[in-house]
Amino acid sequence: MRKFIIDTDTASDDAVALVMALQDPDIDVRAITVVAGNVPLSQALQNALYTVELCGKDAPVYSGCAKPILRELETAQDVHGADGMGDIGLPLAGRAPAPGHAVDVLRQVIREDAGDITLVTLGPLTNVALALLREPELAALVEHCYIMGGIGEGHGNVTPTAEFNIWADPEAAKIVFESGMKMTMVGWDISWKYATFDPGQAAEIRDIGSPLAHFVVDIQATLTEYAIESSHLAGFDLPDPITMAVAIDRGIATFRDFRVDVTTGDGLQRGITVVDVLGVTGRSPQMAVTTGVDRAAFVDMLKRSVSRPV
Amino acid sequence: MRKFIIDTDTASDDAVALVMALQDPDIDVRAITVVAGNVPLSQALQNALYTVELCGKDAPVYSGCAKPILRELETAQDVHGADGMGDIGLPLAGRAPAPGHAVDVLRQVIREDAGDITLVTLGPLTNVALALLREPELAALVEHCYIMGGIGEGHGNVTPTAEFNIWADPEAAKIVFESGMKMTMVGWDISWKYATFDPGQAAEIRDIGSPLAHFVVDIQATLTEYAIESSHLAGFDLPDPITMAVAIDRGIATFRDFRVDVTTGDGLQRGITVVDVLGVTGRSPQMAVTTGVDRAAFVDMLKRSVSRPV
Amino acid sequence: MRKFIIDTDTASDDAVALVMALQDPDIDVRAITVVAGNVPLSQALQNALYTVELCGKDAPVYSGCAKPILRELETAQDVHGADGMGDIGLPLAGRAPAPGHAVDVLRQVIREDAGDITLVTLGPLTNVALALLREPELAALVEHCYIMGGIGEGHGNVTPTAEFNIWADPEAAKIVFESGMKMTMVGWDISWKYATFDPGQAAEIRDIGSPLAHFVVDIQATLTEYAIESSHLAGFDLPDPITMAVAIDRGIATFRDFRVDVTTGDGLQRGITVVDVLGVTGRSPQMAVTTGVDRAAFVDMLKRSVSRPV
Amino acid sequence: MRKFIIDTDTASDDAVALVMALQDPDIDVRAITVVAGNVPLSQALQNALYTVELCGKDAPVYSGCAKPILRELETAQDVHGADGMGDIGLPLAGRAPAPGHAVDVLRQVIREDAGDITLVTLGPLTNVALALLREPELAALVEHCYIMGGIGEGHGNVTPTAEFNIWADPEAAKIVFESGMKMTMVGWDISWKYATFDPGQAAEIRDIGSPLAHFVVDIQATLTEYAIESSHLAGFDLPDPITMAVAIDRGIATFRDFRVDVTTGDGLQRGITVVDVLGVTGRSPQMAVTTGVDRAAFVDMLKRSVSRPV
Repeated sequence: MRKFIIDTDTASDDAVALVMALQDPDIDVRAITVVAGNVPLSQALQNALYTVELCGKDAPVYSGCAKPILRELETAQDVHGADGMGDIGLPLAGRAPAPGHAVDVLRQVIREDAGDITLVTLGPLTNVALALLREPELAALVEHCYIMGGIGEGHGNVTPTAEFNIWADPEAAKIVFESGMKMTMVGWDISWKYATFDPGQAAEIRDIGSPLAHFVVDIQATLTEYAIESSHLAGFDLPDPITMAVAIDRGIATFRDFRVDVTTGDGLQRGITVVDVLGVTGRSPQMAVTTGVDRAAFVDMLKRSVSRPV
Repeated sequence: MRKFIIDTDTASDDAVALVMALQDPDIDVRAITVVAGNVPLSQALQNALYTVELCGKDAPVYSGCAKPILRELETAQDVHGADGMGDIGLPLAGRAPAPGHAVDVLRQVIREDAGDITLVTLGPLTNVALALLREPELAALVEHCYIMGGIGEGHGNVTPTAEFNIWADPEAAKIVFESGMKMTMVGWDISWKYATFDPGQAAEIRDIGSPLAHFVVDIQATLTEYAIESSHLAGFDLPDPITMAVAIDRGIATFRDFRVDVTTGDGLQRGITVVDVLGVTGRSPQMAVTTGVDRAAFVDMLKRSVSRPV
Repeated sequence: MRKFIIDTDTASDDAVALVMALQDPDIDVRAITVVAGNVPLSQALQNALYTVELCGKDAPVYSGCAKPILRELETAQDVHGADGMGDIGLPLAGRAPAPGHAVDVLRQVIREDAGDITLVTLGPLTNVALALLREPELAALVEHCYIMGGIGEGHGNVTPTAEFNIWADPEAAKIVFESGMKMTMVGWDISWKYATFDPGQAAEIRDIGSPLAHFVVDIQATLTEYAIESSHLAGFDLPDPITMAVAIDRGIATFRDFRVDVTTGDGLQRGITVVDVLGVTGRSPQMAVTTGVDRAAFVDMLKRSVSRPV
Repeated sequence: MRKFIIDTDTASDDAVALVMALQDPDIDVRAITVVAGNVPLSQALQNALYTVELCGKDAPVYSGCAKPILRELETAQDVHGADGMGDIGLPLAGRAPAPGHAVDVLRQVIREDAGDITLVTLGPLTNVALALLREPELAALVEHCYIMGGIGEGHGNVTPTAEFNIWADPEAAKIVFESGMKMTMVGWDISWKYATFDPGQAAEIRDIGSPLAHFVVDIQATLTEYAIESSHLAGFDLPDPITMAVAIDRGIATFRDFRVDVTTGDGLQRGITVVDVLGVTGRSPQMAVTTGVDRAAFVDMLKRSVSRPV
């Protein structure tokens, strides 16, 4: 069984990614560490706890950082809904996280299973950065880190040059990107190209009929509107799930190794993932950048995960 | 006859663009205004003067700004050669520019032929920015401005995020981009995609046999090395000539209207052309960004220009 | 007779400085070049024209740049009044400037009287910077430039680190500061330390009884409130007049030579005049920074100027 | 007995501050937490351990962060010597810190003695910032934090606008300054104004004759040269000891409450402590800025500390 830690600012697409990991019989979700991002920390915690409960699993959910390292928290509730889960009336309150702080848990679990942990990050990198700042040696102990964040090629979704997770805490991203950890970046370009679901494609998932099948589609209610109106897509896209898919089965994607820097300025200079395609910076590549994903394989994985019994 | 002003930091590919305009019987090159960029100003002047002489034309060449608005001049002599013309031994000295300063000439000619001037910029935008700062109303008097500069999509050539002309004087670029002038940007991505010449394709041009045919290929000697080694291309690419081709015949290219901002930070935050593909800045498009060019048409235009008698 | 050019964003304290120069029998005010700053350009023009008329002089007033080089114009009408002259009902409309653009006039007059011009700048440095960008050789032809702007020591008035004139157009300031012109900076610290007038001191001026005596005090109405409430002074302060006093009689002040850089960031990083007191930048001093002024001598000069017949 | 935690990048003047605290019978030094800054972490550790041993005390010394949060470590070994202790041949090797990481110890001790800890920081604020990032509630549990860092008024020592400790890790400083902790800043201006020792004044300390008296003067060997040549002082100055003196006896100093921001740009825009003297930012004061110290009282405290038996 592979061992995963999932760091997440749980909102609608994070929840689907959690479902995919939790429902995979070959994956042991050792910890779900929650961070502020799409929604405030307390809401993200409730969303993660609800999702784990819905899957009937007992993966522990830990509370982490409530704000980025240097910046104020600016959530994406216009994208994911006030409750981050599409505002469809889910009972997202009253559940309690496991004792312990996400940053400590990251350090402890990575050390316990040194060399065996796949770390999947679905939100701003605040928790992971703090763990690495406190214990830089940790970077060498992670088997691989899959990062939903940034842009491999093309335009951003928060500014023309930046994707939300990196933009939200660019200093954290810079710390993680410079940490020496083995990393794969799955940019937002991969999501809108390979993980967009138009109404028909969404219905195909939902028609599987299981509670999870309904869940993964219905919570995209707000996201769907946003994706169509602001991102000019045919329907909602699922950045976190396609990242999880790549983490679960690296074989479904293609990659190129690049040096990727993160800018920490303001305005249009905030949170750009600068991919050095030609090597003009003279710095060696430090991560794999995802360049394509087998969409059919991804959709299959998603369908299987909501078809499995909880 | 269409009336052109060409603003240029004349080095190897600028020279080819000059040839294309000067040899075109339907174009009246009203002024060639020179600016520091690829090479120091005095060298750029000589290169422009030599090129006009080689074409047997009498288009006036004017000297302009010797350095960017705020930054130090950093030339691209590693790309184009110490003399900017491939260091192949051309006699690039001793010619004298026409009297008058490029910035004044820009203002004067644009006003004289108000509404009729096509402005083609092939270098850093210092001259044009100064003209616009001194006389903002000028923007409305230019029929259209074609800018070789920036990146429409993808990676840069000086930094991973920036193209040389914009990077060299980002403040000038910002002034021009915000001026209200009707503009079309031809980014470096258009050059490497549609204007790269591998050795065979270069030979095909050179084999036309005219002095101009030899000239336009031979002066790319240094650029060829650079393009292969640093830009990972099959041979030299010709950003300025493909821009000139689009200015001469807009019908050979496709465009999309976008808001394009220029960043004025340092390092990786310097001189990025931020193309707002999704409209997330909320600002209206102010220019056309070239998205594709009919390569065959461009090559034909280039071949015709070197085939015509001087 | 010494020859002065005065560049000014004419509002309440600029007007007093103009009075001092215009009323001085030993000064030939060759040109008053107006720039946007404290108030929009058209208002600043009217204010300068009114002041010249009130003094019964015929110094020509020229219109210059309507906005900073890169930034939007942000006036200080909260400080100087909507009309920039204390909103006391002066008839500030309908007068026409001399033909010609301030930037051209600066260039022309400086060249005509090469080596003899004292340039006094009382506003954002946009006009002067444009003249220097167009004609860098100009810097060597100015006898001396006195700049009201920046901070020699201590706190700012727009942000904690910046004074209005430099803050308003930091890029222009940087161009001027790096131009090689012989310069003396009179920072805002000199103004609040040596040129603040409490109600009694203001009354002493006004009681001289001449129309000019009334004028120079009455137009500070709005400034007085601002100075007391926001700058925590005992009354209005007169940065431009004390700068003019130093330009008229350098002997009344003390100076130290320093390298002074201007920062061009945003927020608290905008428009700081970085005075290298210890020489840690390793750059040579390029200007004199005023460290003190003989207040009695300044007040005497001011009184004399309003006592002289118009 | 008051309880102190001292966070230090131990070099020559830090060591003197440690002596003052360790030798004070009314102070219980609960922890010395070491951070990289003046010298690399391992050297700073040895210097702290040696100083504690020389004082015959058993205050525990803990190892902390080896580099700033986002920036590369740039030490001040040109100021304090390769070994940070004046390169006078002290045996600064082989001692072992107490087990535990400085960041954890900060959190643990502050919680254990909630409300009773005086935190004195003598180096870059990396350790303290990490503790606060991990546990923001900590800020409310510190009785008071005394920070040697920044500039209250006037010029810096690394750049014209910045003091070393804040410059070295401006992001950490910003985190601490925005933490809500009760804080007093003792800027470098306080040091050179009130804590400079010319050769005669240094000799007066040394002539007390105790090993500690020799130690506190002799380790300033390198600093003395630097202070005279680069900071243009009459001899070495002691920023950390005068900060410790203020922490030990607040009554010897005067203060004003201000909002102080930290800039996080590069070059001259790095690590400025922006003191909002006039309140123009509209933000409420969050710390006391030291405006003066009774030098005689400080020198007395220093003398007493080296006179007491170890």
